[in-house]
Amino acid sequence: MNAQDSLDGRRRAVDEELERILGRSDSLLYQAMRYTVLSGGKRFRPMLLLSAGEWYQAERAMLLPFACALEFVHNYSLIHDDLPAMDNDDFRRGKPSSHKAFGEDVALLAGDGLLTLAFEVMAAAPLPATLTTQRARVIEEVSRRAGVEGMIGGQYLDIRLKPAEVNEASYRDIILKKTGGLIIASVRCGGLLGRASDDELQALADYGANVGLAFQVRDDILDAAREKTKDGAFRPNSVALFGEEGARRRLKDYVDAALASLDRASIASEELRALASMLLGLKEGNA
Amino acid sequence: MNAQDSLDGRRRAVDEELERILGRSDSLLYQAMRYTVLSGGKRFRPMLLLSAGEWYQAERAMLLPFACALEFVHNYSLIHDDLPAMDNDDFRRGKPSSHKAFGEDVALLAGDGLLTLAFEVMAAAPLPATLTTQRARVIEEVSRRAGVEGMIGGQYLDIRLKPAEVNEASYRDIILKKTGGLIIASVRCGGLLGRASDDELQALADYGANVGLAFQVRDDILDAAREKTKDGAFRPNSVALFGEEGARRRLKDYVDAALASLDRASIASEELRALASMLLGLKEGNA
Repeated sequence: MNAQDSLDGRRRAVDEELERILGRSDSLLYQAMRYTVLSGGKRFRPMLLLSAGEWYQAERAMLLPFACALEFVHNYSLIHDDLPAMDNDDFRRGKPSSHKAFGEDVALLAGDGLLTLAFEVMAAAPLPATLTTQRARVIEEVSRRAGVEGMIGGQYLDIRLKPAEVNEASYRDIILKKTGGLIIASVRCGGLLGRASDDELQALADYGANVGLAFQVRDDILDAAREKTKDGAFRPNSVALFGEEGARRRLKDYVDAALASLDRASIASEELRALASMLLGLKEGNA
Repeated sequence: MNAQDSLDGRRRAVDEELERILGRSDSLLYQAMRYTVLSGGKRFRPMLLLSAGEWYQAERAMLLPFACALEFVHNYSLIHDDLPAMDNDDFRRGKPSSHKAFGEDVALLAGDGLLTLAFEVMAAAPLPATLTTQRARVIEEVSRRAGVEGMIGGQYLDIRLKPAEVNEASYRDIILKKTGGLIIASVRCGGLLGRASDDELQALADYGANVGLAFQVRDDILDAAREKTKDGAFRPNSVALFGEEGARRRLKDYVDAALASLDRASIASEELRALASMLLGLKEGNA
């Protein structure tokens, strides 16, 4: 089976598990959570987690709840980021954003609900007794990378940093937190559940950091192609910083660095290689 | 040592640990988190957790991170509940609310940060090997009681329920989720970390449910005494529902039921008794 086929299989398994978990109730809050989560995301983070874990022979059924938890955290961040107090985005994936569809109060609570659900799912997931201590490490990893020193801190910098404060170093710092945080957590949680060694976990973190940078630079390039600009909002952006050519060069450098990180620890996962390499494809919807 | 002295000692220990954890960084997000958490809360939930755990001989140092986690979850809910999209409260504990002091974007992120930090603290807290499986049960307990089927669901009902839908049964349902959720989680987590039996955990849940109801009814009575009314907002309220006499009678009934739950499982903790009984004191600042 080639990497694309096996990634497609993983994506379907994730989608089924997401639907199963979110099918618990038909309350309006669950409707709002389903509305965002089940609206055609690419499941990039769950696929990173599954691919890292399965490389280390962990069973997919065991990994799936954790993969879904990462997707819940990602979707909570999208809902809160779209709120009027933040990005004030009326659309997300071609549909009205959560607060446009359900009202600001429900969107806020649905985001809170997804973040809380992520931890519930990780705490309740069946694990063999040999992995009991890994569960705490996984929950700590996700909470640190998603927290104020990670994703939330990156979102804050993204909004509050002044134009004069943006340079290559501060751009990297923001992206490593805002976008890199959850991506690093995804591959490392797969590694933790697969009992990867500390050296391998470090290589997975390096891979994740470079994939995160590539992911964001690619997004900046696609945004520039769409000529999307936010009214009045300043956002650190690699195309604005480096020019389109400079951004494309960095995108390739980051993908190369991600692949080199895998090689360094002899992680020959075709799927992890494919997930990084597909970021070079500058058509919408690849990643 | 009488119950009040030992509760005072617990409160000081909690305050010190909260300050220690939140002293990590001086970023604006940490300032915002400290602003709300370290502004004179009564630490009711942490004291419930410590009192339940210490009744079962668990060490205070081991319990403290979990006690702080409950306080972080409580404070995140206050920050988000005060936002304009929710209650639109400009003041909290006599100071400008978080979004008034820091802006809506920072308040939103500070709330998200506190919720995430709660799980990080629980995942990273040192525990003896014999309690490894209890950690997952505690994290699951907190996430369920704080989540969409618990506190978040109660906040939603509190906002969205229509006047015609409010009666004694729906009021109980809302309060058991909105206020009761975290209070039940607090005592049960103390019990879980103290290795309480299933029967004892059930008795602690019953105690917590009745303490949660008493806590909210008392708050309604104090609000009525303050003649505080929200412009235009309808909120299910025990004084409006049952009259002041009816609310006072229910307050006493709930406290009696809480104490009876302890007796049923022979939980003779003076501190848990005092934490319930002090809710009968209808002066501000008791609980």
